[in-house]
Amino acid sequence: MNHTDLQDYSHKRFNILTGEWVLVSPHRAKRPWQGQNEAISNTVRPTYDETCYLCAGNTRINGEINPKYQDVFVFTNDFAALQKDSKSFSVQDGLLVAESETGICKVICFSPDHSKSLANMDTKDILKVVFAWQKEFKELSENPNINYVQIFENKGAVMGCSNPHPHGQIWSQSTLPNEVDKKNTQQLAYYNKNSSSLLGDYLAQELEKQERIIFENDSFVVLIPFWAVWPFETMIVPKKQQSNILELNDAEALDYAEAISVITKAYDKLFNTSFPYSSGIHQAPTDGNANIHWHWHMSFYPPLLRSATVKKFMVGYEMFGSPQRDITAEIATKMIKDLV
Amino acid sequence: MNHTDLQDYSHKRFNILTGEWVLVSPHRAKRPWQGQNEAISNTVRPTYDETCYLCAGNTRINGEINPKYQDVFVFTNDFAALQKDSKSFSVQDGLLVAESETGICKVICFSPDHSKSLANMDTKDILKVVFAWQKEFKELSENPNINYVQIFENKGAVMGCSNPHPHGQIWSQSTLPNEVDKKNTQQLAYYNKNSSSLLGDYLAQELEKQERIIFENDSFVVLIPFWAVWPFETMIVPKKQQSNILELNDAEALDYAEAISVITKAYDKLFNTSFPYSSGIHQAPTDGNANIHWHWHMSFYPPLLRSATVKKFMVGYEMFGSPQRDITAEIATKMIKDLV
Ligand SMILES: O=P(O)(O)O[C@H]1O[C@H](CO)[C@@H](O)[C@H](O)[C@H]1O
Ligand SMILES: O=P(O)(O)O[C@H]1O[C@H](CO)[C@@H](O)[C@H](O)[C@H]1O
Repeated sequence: MNHTDLQDYSHKRFNILTGEWVLVSPHRAKRPWQGQNEAISNTVRPTYDETCYLCAGNTRINGEINPKYQDVFVFTNDFAALQKDSKSFSVQDGLLVAESETGICKVICFSPDHSKSLANMDTKDILKVVFAWQKEFKELSENPNINYVQIFENKGAVMGCSNPHPHGQIWSQSTLPNEVDKKNTQQLAYYNKNSSSLLGDYLAQELEKQERIIFENDSFVVLIPFWAVWPFETMIVPKKQQSNILELNDAEALDYAEAISVITKAYDKLFNTSFPYSSGIHQAPTDGNANIHWHWHMSFYPPLLRSATVKKFMVGYEMFGSPQRDITAEIATKMIKDLV
Repeated sequence: MNHTDLQDYSHKRFNILTGEWVLVSPHRAKRPWQGQNEAISNTVRPTYDETCYLCAGNTRINGEINPKYQDVFVFTNDFAALQKDSKSFSVQDGLLVAESETGICKVICFSPDHSKSLANMDTKDILKVVFAWQKEFKELSENPNINYVQIFENKGAVMGCSNPHPHGQIWSQSTLPNEVDKKNTQQLAYYNKNSSSLLGDYLAQELEKQERIIFENDSFVVLIPFWAVWPFETMIVPKKQQSNILELNDAEALDYAEAISVITKAYDKLFNTSFPYSSGIHQAPTDGNANIHWHWHMSFYPPLLRSATVKKFMVGYEMFGSPQRDITAEIATKMIKDLV
C-alpha cells in the first residue's frame, strides 16, 4: 500500500472504535493563522495556595475541610452532575423521550502539591494515582446501580478546568454514555466475528508499521491512532487484552504510570508550556458481564494546534459535519516522538 | 405526563435526529463559576477595515482582489479543507481504512459592511444571504461529484472565527459527514415506518405544548429542541416538510430571513454582547435522490453559559461520555423568549 497519498491529499479516515470518520486535509497545514490567541500563564504556582479548595487542610465551598492528605485524595463532587439518590422516572411522550439517570461523581486530587501536574510528578507518585483509580473503579463497579465508570481529567483553563491544582474526576452512572456505547458496539461486532480484540489486532498492525508509535515498554504502547481527531491526540493501550484497569498486575501498573509520565512530559516540551488536554479512560461497562470484547485504553485530547496560544477549534464544520484536522497523525507522531 | 421531574432531577434526553443522548443536570445550575473567563470585545468595528481580507476592494492573502461588492460576495476558500481536483484513492490495509474525499469550499460575505452581523442587518439584507445560499446550494447540488452541501457560520473569536467581518462558509463534498449520516438514518427509519416527517411530527407536538417555542411566523418556528446540548441552542424549522432550501417560495424565504433576524437579535440581548455561535443548515444529501424523508433545519450552537465571558466547556466527560448541560431547555426558552 502506498501511504504517501495520505500526506498529500484530502481524505477521511475511519475510526474502528466508534465507526465514525475524520476529515484530514494535509495540504492545508500551512494556512496562516489570523484568529484568536489563547492566554497562557507559565507562572510557576506555589506548592500551597490558601485560596485553593483542593489544597490539603483547606475548606471547600460547601464548608467541608480537606484532610491533610499526603498523596492522593478522593472526595464526592460538591456539585455533582449525577446524584446517587436522584428520583427515578421515564418520559415517553410522543417524540419527547427522557430517562432519569443516577450516578456518583468524584474528584481525585493527584497530589497535595498545588504546583504539580502529572507531567512533573515522579512515576512512583503517578503510580499512586493509578492505584487510586483502581480502588475507585473497583468500589463503584461493585455498586449494582453503576454500570459505567468514566475516569477523566480536564487540564488547563482552556479545557474548562476551574482549578489548576492537579486533579481529575470520576463520573459513574447507570447507563452507557454515547461514546462508550459506540465503542462497545464496534468492539463487540469485531469480537463476535474474529474472536480477538479489535484494539489488540490494531496494535499488532501498528507495532509492525512503526509509523505512529511514540513509546512502548513491556506492557504498554503510546501511539497516535490512525483516526486521531485532535492535532496531537494520543492513546495509551495495554499490549495484553484487558477489559479494565483492575486486571493490571503491579509491574503493569508501574508500566502504565511510566507511559503516562512519558507522554505528559513530551507534551509539555512540544510547545514549551503546561500542555492542556482532556484525558479519559475507556473501559468495559461495570454491568456484571465479562465483556471480553473490551480492550481498555486511555486517550488524550489536547486542543493546541501550532503553539501554546493557537488552538484547534472544533466548530462549524466539525459540529455539523465531521471532525477535521490539517496535520496528519504521522507528522504529529514524528514531532512528539522526538521529544520522548 | 408530569414534566416537573425534568426540572429537578438528573436525566438524559434522546435526540430523535441523531439517536444520541444528552445528560441534563438541572440541580447543578447554581454551582459557582471559578474557571476561565473569555475575553470579549464590545468595541464597535468600523464599516470598512483596510486590513480585512474580506472587505470590498481589499486584497486577499493569495493576491486576489475582492470586487467592490454591494451586498453578498461569494468566493472559493483560499485555504480549502476540500479540493475539487484532489487525487482519488482508497486505503484498506487491515484495520487502517481511509478514502479520498473531494469537494468545494466557499466563503460567503454577508455584507460589505465590516461592522455588521446577521443580528443587526435588515431582514431584507438577510434575505439576500438566503438567496445566495440557495444559488450556491443549487449550483453545488448539480455537480455530480458533490453529494452533500454544508452551509455554516462561525461567529466570534471564541468560535474560532478568524475574521470579524460578517461571513459564513460552505463546505461541499462527495460523501455524507458523520452528523448528517446520523440524521439521514434516523429520518429515513421514521419515514419508512410512519410515512411522515420526523421533524414535522415533532414540530406539531411542540406547537401544541408551547413549552420550548421561542417564535413563529407563517412558515417557520424557532424553538429550543427538547434534546438541546448547548445552553442556548436553538433550531429554525420550516413548518412544511421541505428537504432543502431550494423548496422555499419567496414568501417563505422572507419568513426564514425574519426567523434568523429574530433569533440573532434575541441572542445579542441575552448577555448584552455580540453573541458567538456556530450555526449550520442540515439538508438532504444532493445525491440525485428525492430524499423525501428529509426535513431541513438550521441550528445555532452558542457556547455561552452564564454571561458574555463564561462559556460552557464541552470537555472531559462530554468528550469521553456524552454532552452534558445544567440549565434545562425549558428555562433557556423562557430566558430567550422574553427578549424577542
Ligand atoms: O475556516 P476558518 O474560519 O479559518 O476556520 C474555522 O472554521 C473551520 C470550519 O469549521 C474549522 O475547521 C477551524 O478549526 C476554525 O478555526
Ligand atoms: O467539573 P468542572 O471541572 O467544574 O467542569 C468542567 O468539567 C465538566 C466535565 O467534563 C464539564 O461539564 C464542565 O463544562 C467543565 O467546565
